[in-house]
Amino acid sequence: MKSQAKADTPGSAPRPTPALHAAARVDKERRVEVCLGARSYDILIGEGLLDRAGEEFAARLAGARAVVVTDETVASLYLTRLEIALTSAGVEFSALTLPAGETTKSFAHLEQTVDAILAARLERGDGVIALGGGVIGDLAGFASAIVKRGTRFVQIPTTLLAQVDSSVGGKTGINTARGKNLVGAFHQPVLVLADIALLDTLSPREFAAGYAEVVKYGLIDRPDFFEFLEKHRGAIFSGGQERAEAIATACEAKAAVVAADEREHGSRALLNLGHTFGHALERAVSYDPARLVHGEGVAIGMALAHRFSVKLGLCSGQDAGRVAAHLKTAGLPTKISDIPGPTLERDALIEAIAQDKKVSRGRLTFILTRGIGEAFVARDVDRADVEHFLDEELPQ
Amino acid sequence: MKSQAKADTPGSAPRPTPALHAAARVDKERRVEVCLGARSYDILIGEGLLDRAGEEFAARLAGARAVVVTDETVASLYLTRLEIALTSAGVEFSALTLPAGETTKSFAHLEQTVDAILAARLERGDGVIALGGGVIGDLAGFASAIVKRGTRFVQIPTTLLAQVDSSVGGKTGINTARGKNLVGAFHQPVLVLADIALLDTLSPREFAAGYAEVVKYGLIDRPDFFEFLEKHRGAIFSGGQERAEAIATACEAKAAVVAADEREHGSRALLNLGHTFGHALERAVSYDPARLVHGEGVAIGMALAHRFSVKLGLCSGQDAGRVAAHLKTAGLPTKISDIPGPTLERDALIEAIAQDKKVSRGRLTFILTRGIGEAFVARDVDRADVEHFLDEELPQ
Repeated sequence: MKSQAKADTPGSAPRPTPALHAAARVDKERRVEVCLGARSYDILIGEGLLDRAGEEFAARLAGARAVVVTDETVASLYLTRLEIALTSAGVEFSALTLPAGETTKSFAHLEQTVDAILAARLERGDGVIALGGGVIGDLAGFASAIVKRGTRFVQIPTTLLAQVDSSVGGKTGINTARGKNLVGAFHQPVLVLADIALLDTLSPREFAAGYAEVVKYGLIDRPDFFEFLEKHRGAIFSGGQERAEAIATACEAKAAVVAADEREHGSRALLNLGHTFGHALERAVSYDPARLVHGEGVAIGMALAHRFSVKLGLCSGQDAGRVAAHLKTAGLPTKISDIPGPTLERDALIEAIAQDKKVSRGRLTFILTRGIGEAFVARDVDRADVEHFLDEELPQ
Repeated sequence: MKSQAKADTPGSAPRPTPALHAAARVDKERRVEVCLGARSYDILIGEGLLDRAGEEFAARLAGARAVVVTDETVASLYLTRLEIALTSAGVEFSALTLPAGETTKSFAHLEQTVDAILAARLERGDGVIALGGGVIGDLAGFASAIVKRGTRFVQIPTTLLAQVDSSVGGKTGINTARGKNLVGAFHQPVLVLADIALLDTLSPREFAAGYAEVVKYGLIDRPDFFEFLEKHRGAIFSGGQERAEAIATACEAKAAVVAADEREHGSRALLNLGHTFGHALERAVSYDPARLVHGEGVAIGMALAHRFSVKLGLCSGQDAGRVAAHLKTAGLPTKISDIPGPTLERDALIEAIAQDKKVSRGRLTFILTRGIGEAFVARDVDRADVEHFLDEELPQ
């Protein structure tokens, strides 16, 4: 297995492109290769990819049929365009539209999705296409992984969060009453099409939530990227070249980590920066999106991870302040008290942290940091330290 | 990845053994190693392994906790002994007892099993122990595969079928209304304990059903083993040294095929000898065990595969007759008309065959044979040939 991801610069894509779109693509299309040996695949990032989805699918899975899985919100915006693209390329398909929202990542909807794939008689060489955000990608990917012990999988992520995070790396799964993403599979897609034009229909809150994951890659090990984000945040939010560059860099960063540690035995855990606190917060508000969405939980979680690192004497207060300031500028919450609604209980948070799957034999694992771009995996964090820290962070 | 399985002769096990059991084990214990690189594991075959399960578990998963999954029938016979064995070895565990029978391989019981594992707070390094036949092994293995995207898995198969077939090779899964084993995962155990003394409580019908899978390995590529079975069938059914030898040879044969093709891209399909017809028959009787159990379906399927091969001019009628005769001697059915109850419909069988997951892009795949021990994968079987053959086989 190669241990790196490659990002092509604009214009270097190896595949010949129709002349009609060529100019646009030279400007805007980027390709990130996720290097996983026989399971390597491309992430294409650019404008108009949705309309080329049929030809890209057929180019990789010649003669294959497809089942499209999407949600009601996305279907109303983009399903018809995808259907036209598939039909034009001669791809036979059926589509399943599920309710929008995190509660769709359930056993019941998994069973429904699996049944739709079986009803369409998909074979192992055929493809499940996820058209949607992280919920649809995780659910459809998991269904694709377990139908006939593995069918092909294609992601067309429609949110910023999904484009830079959930569609890259092969983690799929559902939630249960006991926690988020506690059930799932590693299942790599054969192709990811990140059409950045689709992000124009996101609400500012949704865009900001996805942006939290973009910032994360700067905080893990790319201080230069964090500086780029500080400088270009406005341009990224309003669209254009900086947005594509930020997304491509985030994908490339994640792809590199995944290629080095596909099944999270070690360094991949770095991607959980902000997530142990973040998941606990999401759980504490019962995944109520009116109070907190995933990216917001991660934003607070990253701010907490930096302040916790300050408290443990690992990180400077200045760096922690700079992180919180940047997240705030992007419209993201950075404190537990930023979450609207009833005050959260410390013990419920600790309980949720202990049940999080990134626990190894009872010791608490956190991603801590020595500063911006210097995150590391700490596998032996003292529960009492976390409790004292949360006592300080929670409103009295 | 190494591409072979090794079977130790008695007495060559590398692990030091307590003196008390040593004599018995020199006589009867065998070890088959399934060679899958980092996922390699041992199958231990012998008497009294159930009572050593705790020490064998702890030796491989030091400090790990366990969730035992079993069914009501097996629990009443063996759960207490396993609990004592785990407790003696200091292994912390909880147990889940499910209803016995094929209908337990469902989404509903998968969800229940997953919830029990999460309730016990199993971590990725902890183990799910399947104590039971193929149903429990497949269900518990699948749950182990998807909880936290993969926990450790140990099999203690209690039927002959499970010891020689379902516990070896890492296929796990459940049934849906659309077919058998259509949903699942490849998930290798870390250890299989095949205690042959547990087989004494099987009914003759259950033992015979498992024996069909033993015969299969002779028919695939071991004509000498088929002769051994013809010669020693009586001794194998009554227990003793020949039984252990037959089980070890079957495990070794399966392990070799699995090691060469873990994810069924090619040669592993040979293990489906008798299964395409067999699954279709099971489905046609709605998995009613009063009419047909899996091994019986495989027995009829193997007889059909040989007769179909005769019809296609591939195999001698003499070999097909010898196969049917041996299966009959073992008390197994060999014709569709041997199935009690209403006559089966040809079209329903064809439909079930087409929906079977061993279909590649619409062409029918069968395991055919040129004679005893000369099975091969035929990926381009004409549907009309199958229809004509079934017309001959079905009672008019």
